[in-house]
Amino acid sequence: MGGLASPRTAETVPVPAIAAHGGEDALTALVALVQDDLQACNRAIVARMDSPVALIPQLAAHIVAAGGKRLRPLLTLASARLCGYPGEDPGSLGGLRHVDLAACVEFIHTATLLHDDVVDESQLRRGLASANAIFGNKASVLVGDFLFARAFQLMVEDGSLVVLGILSRAAATIAEGEVLQLQTQNDLSTTEDQYLEVIQGKTAALFAAACEVGAVIAGRPAREQEALAAFGMNLGIAFQLVDDALDYAANQATLGKTVGDDFREGKVTLPVLAAYQAGDEAERVFWRRAIEEGSQGDGDLERALHLMEARGAIEATLARAHGFAVAARAALAVFEDGPVRRILADVSDFAVSRAR
Amino acid sequence: MGGLASPRTAETVPVPAIAAHGGEDALTALVALVQDDLQACNRAIVARMDSPVALIPQLAAHIVAAGGKRLRPLLTLASARLCGYPGEDPGSLGGLRHVDLAACVEFIHTATLLHDDVVDESQLRRGLASANAIFGNKASVLVGDFLFARAFQLMVEDGSLVVLGILSRAAATIAEGEVLQLQTQNDLSTTEDQYLEVIQGKTAALFAAACEVGAVIAGRPAREQEALAAFGMNLGIAFQLVDDALDYAANQATLGKTVGDDFREGKVTLPVLAAYQAGDEAERVFWRRAIEEGSQGDGDLERALHLMEARGAIEATLARAHGFAVAARAALAVFEDGPVRRILADVSDFAVSRAR
Repeated sequence: MGGLASPRTAETVPVPAIAAHGGEDALTALVALVQDDLQACNRAIVARMDSPVALIPQLAAHIVAAGGKRLRPLLTLASARLCGYPGEDPGSLGGLRHVDLAACVEFIHTATLLHDDVVDESQLRRGLASANAIFGNKASVLVGDFLFARAFQLMVEDGSLVVLGILSRAAATIAEGEVLQLQTQNDLSTTEDQYLEVIQGKTAALFAAACEVGAVIAGRPAREQEALAAFGMNLGIAFQLVDDALDYAANQATLGKTVGDDFREGKVTLPVLAAYQAGDEAERVFWRRAIEEGSQGDGDLERALHLMEARGAIEATLARAHGFAVAARAALAVFEDGPVRRILADVSDFAVSRAR
Repeated sequence: MGGLASPRTAETVPVPAIAAHGGEDALTALVALVQDDLQACNRAIVARMDSPVALIPQLAAHIVAAGGKRLRPLLTLASARLCGYPGEDPGSLGGLRHVDLAACVEFIHTATLLHDDVVDESQLRRGLASANAIFGNKASVLVGDFLFARAFQLMVEDGSLVVLGILSRAAATIAEGEVLQLQTQNDLSTTEDQYLEVIQGKTAALFAAACEVGAVIAGRPAREQEALAAFGMNLGIAFQLVDDALDYAANQATLGKTVGDDFREGKVTLPVLAAYQAGDEAERVFWRRAIEEGSQGDGDLERALHLMEARGAIEATLARAHGFAVAARAALAVFEDGPVRRILADVSDFAVSRAR
């Protein structure tokens, strides 16, 4: 994973003149756009997470069926639609590769969530008790492994070595990002580039792969595959930046996770780096104690929130996110204007506006 | 996974008249047979577990380089040799698919070991501190994920959807076996069939896949692929039965793990089932307290060992293992007699004789 100092684009392209509707509307429009495909994808997910070993569908149902936005499979479905899959040719209308591969993407995502919660010792996920809190760490590790293997079985059934290459590379990159995050934990000398490498790996790589797959199965040229990969990569980075901001800014009901989790775990995210780097010596002493030494007491989270406010750390993080969202939108310029492109472009605004 | 009441064969075949040399000699002969390939495989393992994220090669080196018998990659290499890969045709002599796929098999195995040790909270692995004891559970989960993803990247490079199908199915079956083991933990009503399903999944499925891959890349007909899969499956079951016996019978120096681990974890293995089912009511009360309630005190492991001795539980387990080893040997009958077949057949004796 190379350094990543600025938003990535497939090529230098002008920002397309697409009216921004933004916000929740974009997600609603995205769901409406691929509604039938999404329902088919949900059916595929339920059908393919089955196993004669009862604990597997039980645990998988807890996390898969618990919902979440299905953002990653939505991206696969919408990218396929943008690329004309299933094509105009009525003979190809029965194609369901996008549906099955969207399910694969969700399985890989779910596997990483299960392992993340074990790693983070999280008690909450999407506002509900996390799987590890109910079923134990052991089952969460093993069912994560099952879903990961099942994702590859689905890809083998699909039969495209190109798709298998994209998603196996993404899976390796996700693990690298997570390990790098572990290495930078409690370390305030982490650079912004290293932080961006972490979130590019742990989050954005799968967004990029989810989008790229849509272009591949539609048989689109490399230029469009790369454009969709760049769209997903920039979108994913924006999304994770906002997630990291929300960990210090959201109320629990909205976010569906405990505010301050990252703080308690000593995760070095951009809000912390921004507040630390802009802080005076007294503030740095505080951050070193709380994040590097992990010595936290009553009122420390409140102080952290106050310092972030005073140093504009959340605003700085959201401004970075906005930059990546703009780059995501720009990457779509290689496609002709139309309703699908407009909705995908607006999703990049949603990634940021959900924090406002 | 269906029930498994008796040894599996690809078809009903007579036991080939192969002289049994057995024991460590067989493993030594196996290593000697494919020595150059094994060295190439070790080089591939080291080269492909690399990552710019330093903790990954560090942790991977701890477990991969720590040795172990490399039994699974040896099976891939020897199976390929048995099937004439690289073929007699000089033009195909440069083929290294068996080496790369043997490395894949070892990566999948290593990933499951890392996750097993987290699940079991083991402190020892092959006589050394386990990776989770040194690097922590978090890193073990994530590096396991990385090695698993990397295995699939290697398979994609190899380019065979058939191989990808075999190994992705094996990976899902391994996870199912491990989850089933978790479900049967502390449960003395587990049947022998359920126990065999567990070890078929968690251990034998990868042995079977490792062998089958050798026939696939050599382009051998389905009958030979199935024979090698049956050889590996039966060998793997025999191997795990012996492993479960050794957990109550070996001395720590030989086994490289702590004797009594399974007992302390309340794992319901065949030695326990055999002693429990043959025991009188007082003995059953003991087993229920120790295994089902997990209430263990000083002297309980010694009592368990004594009861197993008295009830012939270890001997019964090894007799079952011998049955599967015989079936493994029998599965090779579809191949012509020769030194490679003889060595592989003798490996099935090694699987059992290492306990004597």
